[in-house]
This record gives sequence, structure tokens and C-alpha cells, in this order.
Amino acid sequence: MSNKNGVEWSIRVGDGSSMVLEHEHEHVVMRLWDRLKGLVVGFVMRVCMFIKKAWDLGVDDPRKFFHCLKVGVALMVVSLFYYMRPLYDGVGGSAMWAVMTVVVVFEFTVGGTLYKCLNRICATFLAGFLALGIHWIASHANHQFEPYIMGISLFILASATTFSRFIPIVKARFEYGCTIFILTYSLISVSGYRVDNLLSMTHTRVSTIIIGTCLCIITSMLVFPVWAGLELHLLVPRNMNKLAKSLECCVADYFGRGDEESKKTLPGYKCVLNSKSSEESMANFARWEPAHGGFNFRHPWKNYLKIGASSRSCAYCIETLTSCLDSKNQVPESIKKHLESACMNLSSTSSNVIRELATSVTTMTRSATINVAVNDMKNAVLELQNDLKSLSDLLIQPHDHKENNEQVSSEMTIMPLLEVMPLVSFASLLIETASRIEENMVKAVEELAESAQFKQPEDEVKLKNNQATNKIVSDEENVITLQRV
Amino acid sequence: MSNKNGVEWSIRVGDGSSMVLEHEHEHVVMRLWDRLKGLVVGFVMRVCMFIKKAWDLGVDDPRKFFHCLKVGVALMVVSLFYYMRPLYDGVGGSAMWAVMTVVVVFEFTVGGTLYKCLNRICATFLAGFLALGIHWIASHANHQFEPYIMGISLFILASATTFSRFIPIVKARFEYGCTIFILTYSLISVSGYRVDNLLSMTHTRVSTIIIGTCLCIITSMLVFPVWAGLELHLLVPRNMNKLAKSLECCVADYFGRGDEESKKTLPGYKCVLNSKSSEESMANFARWEPAHGGFNFRHPWKNYLKIGASSRSCAYCIETLTSCLDSKNQVPESIKKHLESACMNLSSTSSNVIRELATSVTTMTRSATINVAVNDMKNAVLELQNDLKSLSDLLIQPHDHKENNEQVSSEMTIMPLLEVMPLVSFASLLIETASRIEENMVKAVEELAESAQFKQPEDEVKLKNNQATNKIVSDEENVITLQRV
Repeated sequence: MSNKNGVEWSIRVGDGSSMVLEHEHEHVVMRLWDRLKGLVVGFVMRVCMFIKKAWDLGVDDPRKFFHCLKVGVALMVVSLFYYMRPLYDGVGGSAMWAVMTVVVVFEFTVGGTLYKCLNRICATFLAGFLALGIHWIASHANHQFEPYIMGISLFILASATTFSRFIPIVKARFEYGCTIFILTYSLISVSGYRVDNLLSMTHTRVSTIIIGTCLCIITSMLVFPVWAGLELHLLVPRNMNKLAKSLECCVADYFGRGDEESKKTLPGYKCVLNSKSSEESMANFARWEPAHGGFNFRHPWKNYLKIGASSRSCAYCIETLTSCLDSKNQVPESIKKHLESACMNLSSTSSNVIRELATSVTTMTRSATINVAVNDMKNAVLELQNDLKSLSDLLIQPHDHKENNEQVSSEMTIMPLLEVMPLVSFASLLIETASRIEENMVKAVEELAESAQFKQPEDEVKLKNNQATNKIVSDEENVITLQRV
Repeated sequence: MSNKNGVEWSIRVGDGSSMVLEHEHEHVVMRLWDRLKGLVVGFVMRVCMFIKKAWDLGVDDPRKFFHCLKVGVALMVVSLFYYMRPLYDGVGGSAMWAVMTVVVVFEFTVGGTLYKCLNRICATFLAGFLALGIHWIASHANHQFEPYIMGISLFILASATTFSRFIPIVKARFEYGCTIFILTYSLISVSGYRVDNLLSMTHTRVSTIIIGTCLCIITSMLVFPVWAGLELHLLVPRNMNKLAKSLECCVADYFGRGDEESKKTLPGYKCVLNSKSSEESMANFARWEPAHGGFNFRHPWKNYLKIGASSRSCAYCIETLTSCLDSKNQVPESIKKHLESACMNLSSTSSNVIRELATSVTTMTRSATINVAVNDMKNAVLELQNDLKSLSDLLIQPHDHKENNEQVSSEMTIMPLLEVMPLVSFASLLIETASRIEENMVKAVEELAESAQFKQPEDEVKLKNNQATNKIVSDEENVITLQRV
């Protein structure tokens, strides 16, 4: 009775109390069942969603599947060391260091794997020799001092190495090596108290690590390799193409020419805004990779970072540009019409330059038409500036001045500057974007072309035979058709 | 004689040849010596520079020194496990796992250490139980099948876990756990072939890891702790203050009021542009931290990321704004004068709002004056818009119209819009910055104040006693004085 709500309700209805209680009981059970079913279904749904998402991730980039299979295969191969007796007798019980190396060292990209492998090998060697040396000194000193010498050296080396990890250049290139250095040194120096045959222990540890790293390097380089350098080489121009598309879509949208598709591609610039850290880590890994594809060992990966930075500086402009879209309806249509063709032309020539640069980076070939494209862009800037100049006239002579002559002759009507302001700032942001493309991006790509010795374009010989002017005219025609489409 | 330049020269001089050769010899030695000295000095200089830089890094943030000492102390304590016999007998030869745990798990922030510790413990337990279970099943099957069962299960689990590391949420929170899971599973399952007493091996491994992690957690939490949450809590308002300063400096510089110091603080906004990844990693670590300082266990760290994103969106605007500085001299002084006070006012009120929000975040107190500050900013926007409106009049009536009346009466002179354009777009970018502050930043801070239950301002009671109007008047006076300074 008392404080249960359901029971109070049964008294009001006044049926046989036992039956009501049974109902009540059934009710509670049903509710519990429903809730449980809901929970289970919800959980299963969530798990399914999660698996679906994970699967999509793999379908988008099947190399991720391959990577997992590679790790599995490498681990299986290493575990053979344990299972096959002859090998087991060879490297001794510490073959598990080989297993550990494979687990810890295997990365998605070849550069990442090499970075970890080389760091691990060098740090292990260095720490091993140092630990043996200090152990030798300590063992020749008074027996009483031995633990103190080992302990203090451990303290000093561990602290110093930990501190060096805060230094940016060490963090970028040798962070993993620092960890392994402390690890190996402390393991060997601490084992010095216990293990009698320290030298053989060091030897097996180093040899098993070499076995593990070699296996990792071979697997990651020969079976479906993913080169960090190639990834960076493809990422940078891909981002540039996204910028070009976003720029075009933004301007088209401003003048009411955007369709559904352009609205989807407009936010493409956003992944350029925060691309710095991923580009930097790829460049760091690429530094460790041997020559592959068209890249030498000392391929100028740093220049890709410069191009990335120039892309970001354009992306900041485009980000500000898109916020102009909110105020696009404040501007009178007549004024917009006046600047439309010049703006559209500038956006299409600018994206043309970006695309040309992206193609040049992708194909590692100097662009034959980049100068023409940049000139087109400059001309488009001049055209827009001229249109802005003549806008002043439009402001004091509104377009309907022919219809009511009397008014104009008696007094000039002035369109308030405030109404035109969003359009003016939109146009000047477009001009700023163009100048950033010219000043940063073109120069950065030029520097890369210089230091990576890009090929001369194939049709340069043909070009020289034709008249240069012909070429320019045809290119200008291309731009004009682009603009009309 | 022949092809050595030096020898030819000696013949011309005509001294005794033996003496000349000695000269020549001395010359080469001296050159080599100079070069060697240069190399050594250069190397020493480089090393000194490197050490100087590293030292500055530590002086800037002495907690980095403390961190290194903490790591050293923790390692010393762990190595006692090896040195003291009773403890050694207790945990057995695998005490080195405790050493390893300390080396690998100790991070700069408490959150980072906890993240690694908890991941390590959970993953070790999970993998240990799973490996023992599968080993039990395999040992009850036909002896022939045992290695196959273990091998295939290792392959499947390793591949699946490696794949799960590609999923963003797993990567952010459990990446280290995934590595440890594969590591422990493969070590135990592979050892299954060899080690007879598997259960005791698992037990010692788990217990040593627990010893190591506990030591790390205690050291990092009790000795000069660096809380990732607190770091994030300080970083976000620090970035906001940098934005406020940059905004003020940029506008002051545009109107020729910048001094040397303002030029130094102008690029402060740049470190906001790329702050995303560091903020995210701090928020990820902060999630693991227990209640500390004014923060509960479930403090809404995600909201800090939102404020960070809003800061970045302002920083993009300011970045575009600074590029206007190049064109500041194109605009006629008279026109600049016309907008100067309104622009300066808007910049000072905007930075005021940012500073007010930053203080509110830092002190975790709702700001009593934020609404007034936002209103001031809105008024400043209106003022600037009014000045822009009246700019149209100025454009057709140049300021010198009183000197030559005849000209004006006969024909109105129009200042070309193109000259004013940089200033107009500068002003509209300022307005855009203000609207981003209002729409993004104020809202984000409001959300944080809501979910983190910020304190009410102390002087609210006093405020209510006074008339609200008084307050507003005095605040407006403050702004005006700021502006005049």
C-alpha cells in the first residue's frame, strides 16, 4: 500500500486486489522488459553504427585494411621465432624483444616505421654501450660505491634526456629515441646488480631488436608501402584544389549563381585551416624515407610546408570571404550587376592559377602556362579595380536616371556608401586573396620547383616553334569560356 | 713542380726552393689548422647555442625542470625494487616491467600520465585474461592444433586492434591502450608455447605494472603537479588576451598611432591560428584528471574547445585585417581622420569585450559588466556605420571646398572610390570581427559559464543597490577615456 503510486491507483479502481496486484506486477515486468529491450536495442544499434563508421573508414582508404593485415602478418612471423626450436635456441629467451619491437615500431607510413626503427636501434646501441661502460667503471671501484654510481648516473641521464624532449627539434626527430635510450639504460644498468652475464644480455637484446626492426622495415617497405612523402606530395595539391573550388563557389554563391553542389563544396577550405600539424608530421616522417617514386632521399620536404602555409594564408582570406555571404542581400542588385562579371572573372582566374600550381606540384613539372595564368589574374584584378572606380559614378548617378530626367538635372541622388560597403569589402578581399596567391603561393611553388628540379614542360619545344603570342591569345580565350560557363 | 699554384708563385719570387717549400708546407698546415679551429669553434658555438636555448626553455617554464627531476626520482625509486633483496624476491625477475612502466608512462601533465596508466592497466588486464582463456581452450584441443589456434587468434586480434586505432575517438582516448593490448596479448600467447607457469607470469607482469603505474600517478599528482585541465584553463584566456592586444595594435598601427612596443605585440594573434591541436590534446588529457583546484571530475572541457574555435575565427579576421596595413598609406589622410575615432573606439570596445570574457573564464566568475561591454561594442559599430554613411557626403564634397568656393558651386568634385576602398574594407573587417566576437565568443563563454556553473560576481549585490544607469554612464566614460589615451 502506502508509497507506491501504482498501488494507490488500483485502490481507486476497486477491482479484486489480488488481480490488480498481478496486473501491477505484469505492468512492472513489462516496463522493465521494455526498458531492457530498449537498452539492448540501443546498444546494438550503437555498436552497429560504430562498426559501420569504422568500415566506411576502411572503404574510403583500403590501405588501412592492408596495414592491419601487415601488422598481423609481421607478428605471426615474429612469433615463429618462439615456435621454431632452432631459431629459439639461437636468440634465447629474450626473443620476446623482437615481438615487442614489431608491436611498438610498426607505423602506418614507411617514414613513421623508419623513424621509430632507426631511433630504436641507435638509442639501444648508445644506451647499451654507455651502460656497459659505466658498469665497468663501477665494478672496478669499491664494491660499496657500485649501486650509488649506477643510481646517480641513471638519475642524471634520465633527467637530462627527459629534458631534451622539450626541445622542439629533438621532440620532432628523436622523441622516441629518447624514451628508448632511458628505457635501455635503466634496464641494463639496473640489471647490472643481478644478471651475471651482462654482456650477453646486451647482445641478445640488441640482436633481437635488430631482427624485429628489419622485419618491420621489410614488411612496411615491400608490401603495399604507404610513403609519408608521397602522402604529403598528394595532400598539398589536394588542399590547393579544395581552395580553388571553395573560392569559385563562394563568389558564385555571392552573386546568386550557386547551385546545390556548390554549397556542398564551399566548406572545402575548412580542412586547409587546420592542416599544419598533419603536414608537419608527414614532412618529419618523409625525411627518414629513402628514394622512392620520383623523390630523392633529400627531397625538399620543407618546401611543401611553405606551400601549405601559403595555402592556409589564402584559406584565412576565404574564411573571411564566406562571412560576406550573410550580407549579400543588403547590396542593391544594380550595383552587384555592375561588379559581377569582374568578380566572377577574378575568382575563375585565381582558381585557375591555384589549379595550375597544384597540377605543377602533382606532376612535378614546371607549368608552361603559369605566367599567362598569373597575368590573367592580374588583368582581372585591374578590371575589378576599374569597375570599382566607375562605381563612384554609378553612386551619384543611379541607373534609373534616364527615366526621370527632371530629378537628376535638378539634384544628384547619392546612393549611400553603407549599402555598397559589403560589396566593396567583398571585392577587396577577393583582390587580397589574389595578391596572396601571387605573393605567397606562386613563390612557394617556384621555390619547390627550383630545389626539387621539376621537369620542363613537354610541350615547351613545340611552344617555342609556335609564336608565343598565339599561345597567350588562346589561353585568354580559355579563361573567357571558363568564365561564361 | 707544375700544377700547384703555390709552387708557381715561389718560382716567380725566386728564393731558395727548399725554403719556399717549407713556407708552402707551413701555409698548408696553417690553413688546415685554421679550418680545424673554425670547425671546432663552430661546433662548440653551436653546442653552446643549443644548450643556451634549452636552458632558456627551462627558465621560461621551471616546471619542465621539475618534471625531469621527478622522472629521475621515480626511476631511482623503482630501481630500488631490484636492489633491495626482500622486494626482489617478492616480485621476481620481471621487476623490470616496473622500470619500463615508469619510463614509458611518465608524462608532463597529470592527465597524460593518468591516460597512459589507466590505458596500460586496463589493456594489460583485458589482454591477459583473453590470452589465458584462449590458451586454456587451445590446450584442451588437440595438441597439434594449439599453435594454429594461438597464431590465428593473435593475427585476428592484432589486425582488429590496429584497425581500431584509425577510428578518431579510439585514437584520441585509447591509442596507447591498443598498443599495450596487442603487446601483452602477443607476449603472453607466444610465451604460452614455452613458459610452463603461464598464470604466475601473467600475475607478476600485472602486479609489476600496477606498482609502476601507482608510483607514476603518486609522483605526478603529489610532487609539483602539472594539471592538463588547469593548463587548458589558462591557455584559452591567454590566447584571448593576445587577440585583444593584436586587435588594438593593428588598428592603432593603421592610423599611425603604433609605437615600437605595439609592433612587437601585433603578431600575438598568430599563435592562436594554429592552437587547435594543442588545445585538443590538453582537453583529451584533462578528461582523465580527478577533481583539482576549482574543477570537478566532469568539468566541461569541451566548452573550452568551443571558445578556442571562436578565438580562432576572430584570429582569421585579424589576420586579414593586418594585411590591410600594407595599403594604409593609399588612403587620403582627410578620409582616415574622418573614421579614425570610430575605428579606434570599436577596436578598444571589442578588445574590452574579449578581455572581459577572458577574465570571466580565468576567474570562473560571471562578468557583471559583460552586457555593458557588449552594448558599448554594438554602439561603436553603429557609430562607425554612421561615420561610413557620412563618408559618402565627404566623397562628393572634399574637405577643402571652403577655400575655393567657385569650383564647388560650378561642379562637384568626386573623390574616387578606389582610394577609399582599403579604408572601407578595413572598417568592414573590424565590424565583422566585432560580430564574430558577439556571435561566437560571447556565446561560447556563456555556454561554459552555464555548464561549469560559474560564480555570480561578488559586487552584484552592491550593483543592485545602485542605479543601473549610473553604472552604464561610468562605463561609457571609461571607454571614452581609454579611447583618448
